[in-house]
Amino acid sequence: MRETVFKKIDELYEEMVEIRRYLHQHPEPSFQEEKTAQFIVDKYEQWGIPYQKNIGGFGVVATLKGGKPGKTVALRADFDALPIQDEKEVPYKSKVPGVMHACGHDGHTATLLCLAKVLLENQSDLEGTVVFLHQPAEEYAPGGAKPMINDGALNGVDAVFGTHLWVTAPVGILQTTKGPFMAGADRFEITIKGKGGHGAIPHETKDAIVIASQLVTQLQQIVSRRIDPLKTAVVSVGTFNAGQAFNIIADKATLTGTVRMFDPTIQETIINEIEKIVKSVCIPYDADYDLNYLKGYPPVINHKEEAEIILDGCRNVPGIEGTEEIKPVMPGEDFAYYLLEKPGAFYFTGAHKEGHDYPHHHPKFDFDERAMPLGAKTLFQAYQLYQEKNK
Amino acid sequence: MRETVFKKIDELYEEMVEIRRYLHQHPEPSFQEEKTAQFIVDKYEQWGIPYQKNIGGFGVVATLKGGKPGKTVALRADFDALPIQDEKEVPYKSKVPGVMHACGHDGHTATLLCLAKVLLENQSDLEGTVVFLHQPAEEYAPGGAKPMINDGALNGVDAVFGTHLWVTAPVGILQTTKGPFMAGADRFEITIKGKGGHGAIPHETKDAIVIASQLVTQLQQIVSRRIDPLKTAVVSVGTFNAGQAFNIIADKATLTGTVRMFDPTIQETIINEIEKIVKSVCIPYDADYDLNYLKGYPPVINHKEEAEIILDGCRNVPGIEGTEEIKPVMPGEDFAYYLLEKPGAFYFTGAHKEGHDYPHHHPKFDFDERAMPLGAKTLFQAYQLYQEKNK
Amino acid sequence: MRETVFKKIDELYEEMVEIRRYLHQHPEPSFQEEKTAQFIVDKYEQWGIPYQKNIGGFGVVATLKGGKPGKTVALRADFDALPIQDEKEVPYKSKVPGVMHACGHDGHTATLLCLAKVLLENQSDLEGTVVFLHQPAEEYAPGGAKPMINDGALNGVDAVFGTHLWVTAPVGILQTTKGPFMAGADRFEITIKGKGGHGAIPHETKDAIVIASQLVTQLQQIVSRRIDPLKTAVVSVGTFNAGQAFNIIADKATLTGTVRMFDPTIQETIINEIEKIVKSVCIPYDADYDLNYLKGYPPVINHKEEAEIILDGCRNVPGIEGTEEIKPVMPGEDFAYYLLEKPGAFYFTGAHKEGHDYPHHHPKFDFDERAMPLGAKTLFQAYQLYQEKNK
Amino acid sequence: MRETVFKKIDELYEEMVEIRRYLHQHPEPSFQEEKTAQFIVDKYEQWGIPYQKNIGGFGVVATLKGGKPGKTVALRADFDALPIQDEKEVPYKSKVPGVMHACGHDGHTATLLCLAKVLLENQSDLEGTVVFLHQPAEEYAPGGAKPMINDGALNGVDAVFGTHLWVTAPVGILQTTKGPFMAGADRFEITIKGKGGHGAIPHETKDAIVIASQLVTQLQQIVSRRIDPLKTAVVSVGTFNAGQAFNIIADKATLTGTVRMFDPTIQETIINEIEKIVKSVCIPYDADYDLNYLKGYPPVINHKEEAEIILDGCRNVPGIEGTEEIKPVMPGEDFAYYLLEKPGAFYFTGAHKEGHDYPHHHPKFDFDERAMPLGAKTLFQAYQLYQEKNK
Repeated sequence: MRETVFKKIDELYEEMVEIRRYLHQHPEPSFQEEKTAQFIVDKYEQWGIPYQKNIGGFGVVATLKGGKPGKTVALRADFDALPIQDEKEVPYKSKVPGVMHACGHDGHTATLLCLAKVLLENQSDLEGTVVFLHQPAEEYAPGGAKPMINDGALNGVDAVFGTHLWVTAPVGILQTTKGPFMAGADRFEITIKGKGGHGAIPHETKDAIVIASQLVTQLQQIVSRRIDPLKTAVVSVGTFNAGQAFNIIADKATLTGTVRMFDPTIQETIINEIEKIVKSVCIPYDADYDLNYLKGYPPVINHKEEAEIILDGCRNVPGIEGTEEIKPVMPGEDFAYYLLEKPGAFYFTGAHKEGHDYPHHHPKFDFDERAMPLGAKTLFQAYQLYQEKNK
Repeated sequence: MRETVFKKIDELYEEMVEIRRYLHQHPEPSFQEEKTAQFIVDKYEQWGIPYQKNIGGFGVVATLKGGKPGKTVALRADFDALPIQDEKEVPYKSKVPGVMHACGHDGHTATLLCLAKVLLENQSDLEGTVVFLHQPAEEYAPGGAKPMINDGALNGVDAVFGTHLWVTAPVGILQTTKGPFMAGADRFEITIKGKGGHGAIPHETKDAIVIASQLVTQLQQIVSRRIDPLKTAVVSVGTFNAGQAFNIIADKATLTGTVRMFDPTIQETIINEIEKIVKSVCIPYDADYDLNYLKGYPPVINHKEEAEIILDGCRNVPGIEGTEEIKPVMPGEDFAYYLLEKPGAFYFTGAHKEGHDYPHHHPKFDFDERAMPLGAKTLFQAYQLYQEKNK
Repeated sequence: MRETVFKKIDELYEEMVEIRRYLHQHPEPSFQEEKTAQFIVDKYEQWGIPYQKNIGGFGVVATLKGGKPGKTVALRADFDALPIQDEKEVPYKSKVPGVMHACGHDGHTATLLCLAKVLLENQSDLEGTVVFLHQPAEEYAPGGAKPMINDGALNGVDAVFGTHLWVTAPVGILQTTKGPFMAGADRFEITIKGKGGHGAIPHETKDAIVIASQLVTQLQQIVSRRIDPLKTAVVSVGTFNAGQAFNIIADKATLTGTVRMFDPTIQETIINEIEKIVKSVCIPYDADYDLNYLKGYPPVINHKEEAEIILDGCRNVPGIEGTEEIKPVMPGEDFAYYLLEKPGAFYFTGAHKEGHDYPHHHPKFDFDERAMPLGAKTLFQAYQLYQEKNK
Repeated sequence: MRETVFKKIDELYEEMVEIRRYLHQHPEPSFQEEKTAQFIVDKYEQWGIPYQKNIGGFGVVATLKGGKPGKTVALRADFDALPIQDEKEVPYKSKVPGVMHACGHDGHTATLLCLAKVLLENQSDLEGTVVFLHQPAEEYAPGGAKPMINDGALNGVDAVFGTHLWVTAPVGILQTTKGPFMAGADRFEITIKGKGGHGAIPHETKDAIVIASQLVTQLQQIVSRRIDPLKTAVVSVGTFNAGQAFNIIADKATLTGTVRMFDPTIQETIINEIEKIVKSVCIPYDADYDLNYLKGYPPVINHKEEAEIILDGCRNVPGIEGTEEIKPVMPGEDFAYYLLEKPGAFYFTGAHKEGHDYPHHHPKFDFDERAMPLGAKTLFQAYQLYQEKNK
């Protein structure tokens, strides 16, 4: 059956690309993916695969019961986009100003939908039950995975697999780890509350831009001076907005940022240091502040046996040239929540586009679409091997 | 005649307040004051005072020829508002989100309009000719004064006076100087062009927020280390905007700011230092930048004799408790351009509102409306004294 | 008599240079000028002019009573050197490692000594009494002037004059002001007390160098953001010492600096801001600090009539090409204390050395020795004019 | 024989403490250990063990040929001290101002000397040959190991072992790793060359302290922004010295620091970033700089089989309660050079002193002397096991 499925996936490549490009042109940011969810629902409706919608928000859970007995294994694809202006020049460029699929979730969705279509055609030969998890809001904590789980998306599920198209790996390569794979990811929001006034009379104001600039500079010292150099930590400020006019001193500055780590004691250190730094930069100006620290996704910790299914078991999938056990990576993923509930593994499917060296979340991000059928094949391979190992 | 005019100004107080509050509720930012100009035009139209509109943009110039011979003296009021969200709670609060009369130009306009109305009623006794200069776009260089002058607003004018309602002086006090009165004011815009990317992978990016924060911090050293402590200089960053999402490292940061000085060699030093600092902060990250430095208004330099008309001659105007020769002040004013062309003086009419200690350009800015008739009376007094002195 | 004195001063030029160069080779830092004081005493002893030594420390006060009645006028010269390594290559280079006359006090002393010698030769013609104030420790607050006054140096004195050889003015020019002339000067010492440790394990330390560097950077914001741009203020850190070895994180950092201003409310603002900044930079590291702020010399405020003696009355001294009423200058001077007690004036005697553009306190500082006789002549002229005006 | 040796080591404890305390009182900094070398030589002379001195500087190599055939194994102890002022209050406190055994090398020397004395007493039973490497200058790159090797210290040696008394591990515990164990360690020296001048006239100077403070702050961004968060890097500034007097702006600032990493590409990145940052901070002031980057010790990479001798083979040594395979540590060690030449392993012998929590290189550093015999026993055990495994 495996060869049949692989072959049919290849035959569906054109449709896969079409779906991906449609989604790429119509991105929706996290928690606002109403039309994307409807697009997914329409497909399952059209193909006659039973599904539930509005699971944990805009989540869609479709279920395909095979003709043969076996385990229930969930395969997950996320479908939200990012608040980034698409700056690449391609026919399938985003049509929504300021919103863009800059992380490949359009590809994940196309991959999983086409796999569902293929498996439907092979339903009678299929062992066990496939649960297709279409998840919204991966990009923005608290994310979509947790509400979907709370809404029962994992009920009856034995294991869960998922993949991310990954542009720093070449097409044909799979990457994952046994154990810690992706970092814990938190979010923070800081508002510096100074006192505005005329740009020519600084001494009667409390210059929020000067204070917040000091803050950004000093936040760098958390990683450079306060964290064990052998441990991993990232503190990044992603947005800084202040001021209304060039000649008015800003009364407040609003910053948001992200924190990454693999270790909860590092998380506590970072929270404590951010608090002290924000407090300290306000003191010379007698300024106030709001600090809102939101603990986000826990680290993605793969289960050993399921990670071995990827590393050892997917090597021979046609088109796969190798699997690599890599070091853990810094981005976070709310796939972490599934792995806290069920055995499973998350892995990268190499998707580097030749001559196009823009990282994930970059305004010119793009991936090699030939990675999508490889994602579909390896997800199916993982499904099959899990069935074999757990008879 | 003087007493008659003063009395009539007092009688028009209610209308003055009404005009001011209407304008306060309907503010328009610099270069977009179409409806405000029309409002002014409607008044002159209604009163039958000849005027020209669209002078140097939305400028309005009305002319009242007195029944007796004399000099032609221009009186100026500006009428643009600021891009600030009105945060005070009053019935006449701005109805336009994000725009506000936070500098008192609404009051200037009400003052000059009502003075025109009063003088029209005394036209036959009036010596010389009054030119009412209603000027747009004072808040934003290159400003409205220069285009109005280019369009002929000062043609045939012998002298020019203007006043600013000033909330750091109490009602009843006039303030000005002989010679340098208000600072030269420039504008700059800086864009730091880094490289965006995932918030968890800083080393593959060029973090524009970190670079720009460094820039703000280092700009402080111009005034502290590069300028003669006996000379005056201000470098303020008014806006700082960067980033699209908390977990995406910003690819660029855009800053705008203002520079103030009384001395052209200081101006050159500051321009040179800003250039070096912007260049230097980009180096460690191999980042790029755009720097756009716009030389703005020259300093306001009062003419000695006309300043003495204010300092000595306006002391006895009813309601005026004193005149003060103060130190020069840091804000700039494009009234400077009139004084480069004609004799004249600019002065502050005290307008502090009891218990309301917000500076000009503050979101809660307001002034004591009783200052408006004092502005009208002292402008008229200056007009009269100029006629007497220049017979 | 005046021409005789002027002529004899010129004749003594060689001796003046000799004295100056001897002192230049044998500098002593503030409060340690034992040998320099003895050198001065030896001269008065040799010439038979009565003197007192050990006045307020190493101070020397000599008194020459003229043959004719008149007022008692003190003339002052300071004689301490600076802890600077002499880096210029001249035959009279300092012989004391790390100590140097980098401010011209050697010249002041030579000037006053030779004037004493000349006046002694004209004692019978001399009206009034000259008091020669040889003062130690001008460079280091609390200075030598105050203790000399406390020890009675001004007893019976009617007025006091002094001059400073000044290398930013050309030879032949005198500079002073009526009123504020030289700034108030304070000293501060800050110790940041972190926690030392291995250079490779920063997170177990509190890096005093990082904290103190932050401190220096933030101190710049006092002048740039907290002081009225129309007022004058300087905050300079002069020394920064921390650390024992390249691979050991420093447990403490010691900084010293100076503050200048003309206005006591600015002084209070600066003290308050320094305190807040030092406190704030320690917070993120839970570090401690010592802050010792020593109010130093008050501003030098010249008395109007005595300043006019310099500005108007010294114009015709042979060799003087002009007198200039300048803006106040930032350096401080404990001559301020004499002017709090007695009428008088302090002024600069131009001493720029062609082709040698190093400021006062620079390791290559030097002055044009031809300025010394001009200093002597103008001091005598001031003495004479004071006698004339106060008969 | 092993029990005999262990027993005799215990019997020598008093002498071991005596030697250690003598050395502790008479520390000598790196490359100046002349008397310490002589002390070691005197012991070998006295005991009659053949030795060579002045090997690669003050190095001493003693050789004890056992009565039975076997391999030649070198055991290494370093003997230099640090430029730190001893601040602890103990009878054996350093007698040399500003110099201190703050890293335990005194203990290493006492340990190895006493082991030599014991083995001499058991020479006939001893298999193979022991080479005692007494190495100077471990604390200061380029270190003493490399010159000793160049001078032939490892000629004929088959393997090498060494230990470091380690106060963050309890007495009774051994720690090491297979593979990377201690970081690569570089040194840098930076001189910022500004322009000095009067503290009150900053705009005529180039303030080296302000520039260098900016430098320290920006160096923090190398680790926080330019290095892969999954890789290890440290950049620490250990000394910062600038300025001669509180009221003189410093013309230069001198900084030294250390860099640590395990990966040569990270080393190249750091060198490149330091260069760019130093260059950039000088630009706004048109200042100059010297940057001297000295690549130091490579990382200590233990050989697998010899590390297993420690981890597995030393567990049963009397007094040893456990061995731990730890993460690599950040400090560097020139033991690295021996391991580039010969098989071997370096390990930590736990030496934490109860209630005395000061890290290595701290002015109050001390260790538990009972760790010394454990160091001697485990070195001997490693020697013996190596002989057994390599027959």
